[in-house]
Amino acid sequence: MTAKIGYLGPKGTFTKLAVDTAFNGETKHSFDTIPECIDAVEADEIDVGVVPLENAIEGTVQLTVDYLVHQVRIPIMSEIVVPIQQHLLVSPDFSGALTDVEEVHSHSHAIAQCHQYLHKHLSQARLCYTSSTGKAAQMVSETNKPIAAIGNKLAAKTYGLRMIQEDIHDFPNNHTRFAVLSKNKASVHINHSVQSEKTTLLITLPSDYAGALHQVLSAFSWRKMNLSKIESRPMKTGLGNYFFIIDVNQPYDDVLFPGVRGELEALGCKVTMLGTYPVYQMDV
Amino acid sequence: MTAKIGYLGPKGTFTKLAVDTAFNGETKHSFDTIPECIDAVEADEIDVGVVPLENAIEGTVQLTVDYLVHQVRIPIMSEIVVPIQQHLLVSPDFSGALTDVEEVHSHSHAIAQCHQYLHKHLSQARLCYTSSTGKAAQMVSETNKPIAAIGNKLAAKTYGLRMIQEDIHDFPNNHTRFAVLSKNKASVHINHSVQSEKTTLLITLPSDYAGALHQVLSAFSWRKMNLSKIESRPMKTGLGNYFFIIDVNQPYDDVLFPGVRGELEALGCKVTMLGTYPVYQMDV
Repeated sequence: MTAKIGYLGPKGTFTKLAVDTAFNGETKHSFDTIPECIDAVEADEIDVGVVPLENAIEGTVQLTVDYLVHQVRIPIMSEIVVPIQQHLLVSPDFSGALTDVEEVHSHSHAIAQCHQYLHKHLSQARLCYTSSTGKAAQMVSETNKPIAAIGNKLAAKTYGLRMIQEDIHDFPNNHTRFAVLSKNKASVHINHSVQSEKTTLLITLPSDYAGALHQVLSAFSWRKMNLSKIESRPMKTGLGNYFFIIDVNQPYDDVLFPGVRGELEALGCKVTMLGTYPVYQMDV
Repeated sequence: MTAKIGYLGPKGTFTKLAVDTAFNGETKHSFDTIPECIDAVEADEIDVGVVPLENAIEGTVQLTVDYLVHQVRIPIMSEIVVPIQQHLLVSPDFSGALTDVEEVHSHSHAIAQCHQYLHKHLSQARLCYTSSTGKAAQMVSETNKPIAAIGNKLAAKTYGLRMIQEDIHDFPNNHTRFAVLSKNKASVHINHSVQSEKTTLLITLPSDYAGALHQVLSAFSWRKMNLSKIESRPMKTGLGNYFFIIDVNQPYDDVLFPGVRGELEALGCKVTMLGTYPVYQMDV
């Protein structure tokens, strides 16, 4: 049976680019918000949900983490890392120069990522904000006016636009990360080589005391377990209460992780595993 | 002379709500993106810039942090904490029930925050995504159709809308934090009582080795310095290189902080102070 994959739409967004690069042959369904996509996995309407985890253009990462922590607990089955490459897209009929572009349309985060470039090369153009990069590309494809969109390669392809200038983002080496959520490991087929293995833990501290986090990290440190990400987030029970999301750079095992858990529970912490999974780095 | 304050616009957004609550008498200027607002402070076009730091509806927090770290170094002069309260806004002429609402307009993050409520009470309504919550309120004010917006109290007031249902956000105790940036402390006058004092540090690790972060935290821990936030962010020099943003729950002093800095530099870390400043908790 063909697996159903949900993603944060619409067409031509970075999430869709990640999904198209990672998956092949599955049916793909667009969702308007992150909670809708996660709920659909929970309700078995789709087999797999792909949502932003870090540095997203469209969709807020905090929302993904908070929704997984507070609302619906579905394991992370893999992580997809995609380079952020923004291009300036125009209609194939546009024959002018950059200085002839009257308006630049895109999501405000994408416009912000190309801030230096726009300031230098398109200072005459009016900036217009859309709800997604895909939407901006669609608008440019539907008009004869001398306007441009900022978006990725997929947006150019989807809406038949020409990349008049490639790689206009200010920072190179910028990536966005997506979580692949599913109840069933067998639904997730990614035909790429695995870059690394990771385990993501949610750790709730008993209270806010000096050095608590330091003690928590000791449990990893003396076992020489390397952490690639640590982030504190408010508990939503009021300011000052925090939980931590920690990425450990190794797969779950039956010795080290239970050891960590035992020590942390003895300190009064609560430890939950959000997933142990492969990381795929995509070239797009 | 009246200070000029810049914020992430347009009217009726959460940043504007924070600015209006915290400041009184200054002139206020709306900016379309976070980098534009920070650049304007750098270029002395405005005296103070207010940008989102955590849990923002409009504007991405990562962008604020990355821009302050990589592009323009302007000190944080204070932090403003504002509760997130989302309301359902309709035209004052609307006399129907909730079930008569045909469309709900808002920023996708605001719609996502009210996901459970919308699912339960407005499942018949079509969801329409705008570039900001203020923009959604403006749209509702300009039509006679039976549509609603999700936004805050200020949006209701600014566009003369009626709050047909208050507090429709799914999670209570949700807050958003804003950084007040300025080159000159004298430009920042906030007439509220100070909730606490904080110091934000940027710490770059020499390399990715097991336990490095643990060693860094030791320098704070044995001094009993409490950390309220810790977040790792990619360095943008490729995956795997990280820096850390750490909030210490006390003002800068001439003994403890130089001691921490000395120890961390001996480990090969780079330590930069992004600001030492008061935190204001607003009731809106």
